[in-house]
Amino acid sequence: MLTLYHAPNSRSSRIVTLLMALDALDRVDIRLTDIPRQDGSGARDPNNPHPEGKVPLLVTEEGEMIRESNAILLYLTDRFPSDLAPEVGAPGRGAYLSWLFWYGNVLEPVYMHRLAGLSHPVLSASFRGMPEAVAYLAAGLDGWAFLLGDRNSVADLLIASPFLWFPEATPDVPAIRDWVARCAAQPCIARSMEFDARSAEEMGLAPA
Amino acid sequence: MLTLYHAPNSRSSRIVTLLMALDALDRVDIRLTDIPRQDGSGARDPNNPHPEGKVPLLVTEEGEMIRESNAILLYLTDRFPSDLAPEVGAPGRGAYLSWLFWYGNVLEPVYMHRLAGLSHPVLSASFRGMPEAVAYLAAGLDGWAFLLGDRNSVADLLIASPFLWFPEATPDVPAIRDWVARCAAQPCIARSMEFDARSAEEMGLAPA
Ligand SMILES: N[C@@H](CCC(=O)N[C@@H](CS)C(=O)NCC(=O)O)C(=O)O
Ligand SMILES: N[C@@H](CCC(=O)N[C@@H](CS)C(=O)NCC(=O)O)C(=O)O
Repeated sequence: MLTLYHAPNSRSSRIVTLLMALDALDRVDIRLTDIPRQDGSGARDPNNPHPEGKVPLLVTEEGEMIRESNAILLYLTDRFPSDLAPEVGAPGRGAYLSWLFWYGNVLEPVYMHRLAGLSHPVLSASFRGMPEAVAYLAAGLDGWAFLLGDRNSVADLLIASPFLWFPEATPDVPAIRDWVARCAAQPCIARSMEFDARSAEEMGLAPA
Repeated sequence: MLTLYHAPNSRSSRIVTLLMALDALDRVDIRLTDIPRQDGSGARDPNNPHPEGKVPLLVTEEGEMIRESNAILLYLTDRFPSDLAPEVGAPGRGAYLSWLFWYGNVLEPVYMHRLAGLSHPVLSASFRGMPEAVAYLAAGLDGWAFLLGDRNSVADLLIASPFLWFPEATPDVPAIRDWVARCAAQPCIARSMEFDARSAEEMGLAPA
């Protein structure tokens, strides 16, 4: 069985959301895992084999360790095919990969640079900034309900995630706001939040 | 036919290297593309459909645009299966995805943060720094000739690439230095450098 190291209300919650959407929660052993939190609570969990104590981490039956949220999402959508993600060779596969990698190569860095108030010619040459990322996202949604077309996919689950956690960070662009609302309304989001609330209670964590 | 927007001696050279290794150069229409260079030469190419004028960009027969080097490498290795990358379901697939995403999520950001001389608690919480990245790379190579085991793969091609461009940035860890030397010695590297030298001449660029 696959093993997922998961901390409630963290980046790994996106993996639980996917498992909910795939109805595959019973195909993964979910290990509730402590992590140091921004507010100073929590601590590195000695049972977490991630080399830096982070979540998510997925471990396969063969002991292969898969770190990085986008890698885990892709691995799981390839392993459990569904209409949430195009398979290899299917239309939309290229766009799907492009969005998953863009999230980590560009959106997270520029989001963090803005959060930290940092700007530097090296950063703008490599990553550009939030305005370019927002323009790219808006262009990707142009005329579509979701990033890959008229159907919700794992690209939406991943790329909307920062705006579900921090609604105030949602770009003030109507097409993006409407898309974030459509993403937030997916039933797997509510189910994953309930799962996290129960898990946090089980772990004795303060409610999110 | 696939179309690749490529600038000689740039991040897109890695895609040419892969095409050389796959012997698939004739399956892609390579469009030589100008970009603004660090030294002030070059300019945005009006023929490049990338929204920010960057390379690489791969466009499929159906007009799907695939940006991000790691997305393009994965798309191509899935489309042209070879012993350079594990297919979906094969042993090593999880590790392969993990390395490709780690490159963009972690290695490039921490490399750029160091280059820019930036440090900030937000950056270290999300990305950690070069010491952690180097430790992770060294641990991944532990006892192996290459990242996925005893055979060179596209994970090596991608992750060694910054150290092939900037040898002085190679971490001073014997296992990593030896691995970079093994990666540099792959025949596709020399062939891709020759291709870039010819292309630069054709475009009237100064030699790299
Ligand atoms: N790039 C990684 C980032 C993972 C990450 O930073 N996770 C946070 C939780 S939101 C964590 O584990 N923090 C604890 C720590 O940094 O020690 C991914 O997307 O999976
Ligand atoms: N994350 C992108 C970065 C692409 C990128 O920054 N490419 C550089 C060439 S090394 C470029 O096109 N620079 C021109 C510009 O920024 O205008 C990737 O890995 O594909």
